[in-house]
Amino acid sequence: MPLRPLDRAAHAARRARLAALLGDRPALLPAGAHAPRNYAANVFPFRTASHFLYLVGMPLPGAMLRVARGEATLYVTPGTAQDALWHGPQPDFAALSAHLGCAVRALDTLPDALRGTDTATLPAVDLATCERQSALLSRAVRPGTLAPIDEALADAMIALRLTHDTAALTSMRSAVATTERAFAAGMRATRPGVRESAVRAAMEYEIVAAGGAPAYGAIVSVHGEVLHNDTHFGTCAEGDLLLADVGAESEDGWASDVTRTWPVSGRYTPTQRAIYDVVLAANRAAIAAVRPGARYRDVHMTAARTIAEGLVALGILRGEPDALVTAGAHALFFPHGVGHLLGLDVHDMEDLGDRAGYAPGRTRSTQFGLSYLRLDRDLAPGMCVTIEPGFYVVPAIFDDPALAPLAAQYVDRAVLARFADVRGIRIEDDVLVTDDGAEVLTRAIPKDAPDVEAAVRG
Amino acid sequence: MPLRPLDRAAHAARRARLAALLGDRPALLPAGAHAPRNYAANVFPFRTASHFLYLVGMPLPGAMLRVARGEATLYVTPGTAQDALWHGPQPDFAALSAHLGCAVRALDTLPDALRGTDTATLPAVDLATCERQSALLSRAVRPGTLAPIDEALADAMIALRLTHDTAALTSMRSAVATTERAFAAGMRATRPGVRESAVRAAMEYEIVAAGGAPAYGAIVSVHGEVLHNDTHFGTCAEGDLLLADVGAESEDGWASDVTRTWPVSGRYTPTQRAIYDVVLAANRAAIAAVRPGARYRDVHMTAARTIAEGLVALGILRGEPDALVTAGAHALFFPHGVGHLLGLDVHDMEDLGDRAGYAPGRTRSTQFGLSYLRLDRDLAPGMCVTIEPGFYVVPAIFDDPALAPLAAQYVDRAVLARFADVRGIRIEDDVLVTDDGAEVLTRAIPKDAPDVEAAVRG
Repeated sequence: MPLRPLDRAAHAARRARLAALLGDRPALLPAGAHAPRNYAANVFPFRTASHFLYLVGMPLPGAMLRVARGEATLYVTPGTAQDALWHGPQPDFAALSAHLGCAVRALDTLPDALRGTDTATLPAVDLATCERQSALLSRAVRPGTLAPIDEALADAMIALRLTHDTAALTSMRSAVATTERAFAAGMRATRPGVRESAVRAAMEYEIVAAGGAPAYGAIVSVHGEVLHNDTHFGTCAEGDLLLADVGAESEDGWASDVTRTWPVSGRYTPTQRAIYDVVLAANRAAIAAVRPGARYRDVHMTAARTIAEGLVALGILRGEPDALVTAGAHALFFPHGVGHLLGLDVHDMEDLGDRAGYAPGRTRSTQFGLSYLRLDRDLAPGMCVTIEPGFYVVPAIFDDPALAPLAAQYVDRAVLARFADVRGIRIEDDVLVTDDGAEVLTRAIPKDAPDVEAAVRG
Repeated sequence: MPLRPLDRAAHAARRARLAALLGDRPALLPAGAHAPRNYAANVFPFRTASHFLYLVGMPLPGAMLRVARGEATLYVTPGTAQDALWHGPQPDFAALSAHLGCAVRALDTLPDALRGTDTATLPAVDLATCERQSALLSRAVRPGTLAPIDEALADAMIALRLTHDTAALTSMRSAVATTERAFAAGMRATRPGVRESAVRAAMEYEIVAAGGAPAYGAIVSVHGEVLHNDTHFGTCAEGDLLLADVGAESEDGWASDVTRTWPVSGRYTPTQRAIYDVVLAANRAAIAAVRPGARYRDVHMTAARTIAEGLVALGILRGEPDALVTAGAHALFFPHGVGHLLGLDVHDMEDLGDRAGYAPGRTRSTQFGLSYLRLDRDLAPGMCVTIEPGFYVVPAIFDDPALAPLAAQYVDRAVLARFADVRGIRIEDDVLVTDDGAEVLTRAIPKDAPDVEAAVRG
């Protein structure tokens, strides 16, 4: 089995930068373990832990990367004859070391290397690996929980991963190129009577054929108002809008994340088109606000204000847009944040919680809607974010007693009823912050209503 | 969101049978939890624990089924407003109860229901659920480890699941029908220059479009000699054989498991055809041995003997077939077992280890090859098994010092070298034991060499 090529220099540079940031503080980064599906040996496709993947670039279940005194060492289990029978010839340590440009040692020597050190770590997402981390470091390591000793390591990884190097951007552009093909295929496959699952399958075909994987569970649904809908057994009907939130992960693990909402018939109705154009205006206004130094929460508020303006113009919201946004009335229809960091993870570094998404000193709002904003940093060149405003008519929102006064005051239900053929619309792009503005990585995926209609009609 | 239809009576009957088998011993069966992929909220598609799914028929992450004094009660978390926003309207307890035909209570009342009882359980495959089981039952519950109190429950589930009811067979036939389409698509998609991943994508398209999921990680590889090859970045070349081991899981979770090996060019070479026909003869001979009362290890030995005979006829093995099989020489080329149980799991009930696959009093052989046999029970009507002999030239086997004497004695390496264009061939069918013999569920998938060639050439 040949080893998959990787950019050795880029990964070595990342390890060197981490070592420099850590100084004399040792660190241990796990690759993670296979996740069992219905029994131990039937596993989900292995996804390497993102911090490890960032530094090593290769899937090595069970491996650990140790960084100490400026040096990175990879600890792996030597392949057995049984491994070779079931999983093919394994590279020996010398071959692996040459491939990666990094020292490689046997995993069973790791306890000795760690003995007597105060080593920082980042908890794996899986409990099995956390148990191994706990045993190796003689302290409790739990998913999602940083010990004080781990915080400097977390901050170093955030510093590295917040802005993307050339190798990362090459991979992300590759993921986007696959996602473009997926959307073209999905739009082409859509027609009345087709199951959501068939459109999803047409999109995932492109992702699997490219050697990648879905970066997250695909949402392909005529019920776009269910924000994280993970069922696909519905059928596309003539008057429906189909919302597809699908992103390829590149073969080496970098994410893309795109949403489009298209008419099953190939034509938006006038009411669908009216709301679509409001969401599209919010998408464009928010993208226009992306530039170095901009605060991401302000990008969110730009989208919120554009949604509010559009809904006032349509008569769905009553009032003055700025006042509506201050009151949070836009969130009755746009309840989530305008986007998030994008990188190896689709919500990049969400394993570290708001430590990654929120700049020091900033915390989440408690206001409905704004509380779901996953990112509030000042943007910098090399950061990649999604921009994904939406409009949804969610029964759970209008049934929520806590939100009833807001709805009663600002929503014209009679006007809203005229837009009954709109349940959920979202338009999401991946945007790279450049030195003087922004580059929309996903610009080739149809977005203007006539372009979308043409792509659906084929 | 409409609930997906399910066969309420069949599931109620299964619960009643379990309750009858348990008598006054209470039992707790977990549905399992989402497995995180790269961070907690980015999860793999949820697969309900098979024992729970067998009894309830519906995916309900975090739920627990309690069976006590003849009654089954489902414990679930009530949906919150936040659930409704992100995941859509959730059925209330009354709707769920009516849908399932089973009492439904709030999960937070489960500790009270369990207090003071000695309740058996089966460990979930995920550690997070095992931790919840441990807390609920005040004892350590670990994946793959049965406590003495759990053994009667395990045996009851094995008794139920060993033979399939009508509802199960309907689902398994549905899975097979999807897998048939997947193989037709995969064969059609194969040509020189195509990546393995593109053939895999064509096959998985059919599975995803049908609303199912792959029952296990697809093997689609020109290196069929790597038994559990999980890479797909190779390219199909003119003279290669492509081995595809792919099975759909039905929308309600029942598995199929099929392997075919076809020529990339659309024509087997004479050497490939010669070995293919040996494996096919073993597949047919083993299937012919499947009947009520037959011991599965004998079915395996039938395949082994047919392989040995064929390889003797080709001059690859030297000696008398029965003696070769006794010595284990066939296992140099056919190192794995001829198959396993098939049901909700592709290796059905493998979470219970050999307790499920081996009849009481039978244990695994330590002989190379036979040690990998996953099933040794007497067959009974309603059981479903795979039959999957193969021929592989595995460098790791011929490099293994422990096997060198066997190879030196029985293998004619000069003759073997003439078959260098064969690395791995496997032919696998799903077979139902009937009252008077066997039914090959997968009979519509091309298997005779000319039929396979025709399907590849399209």
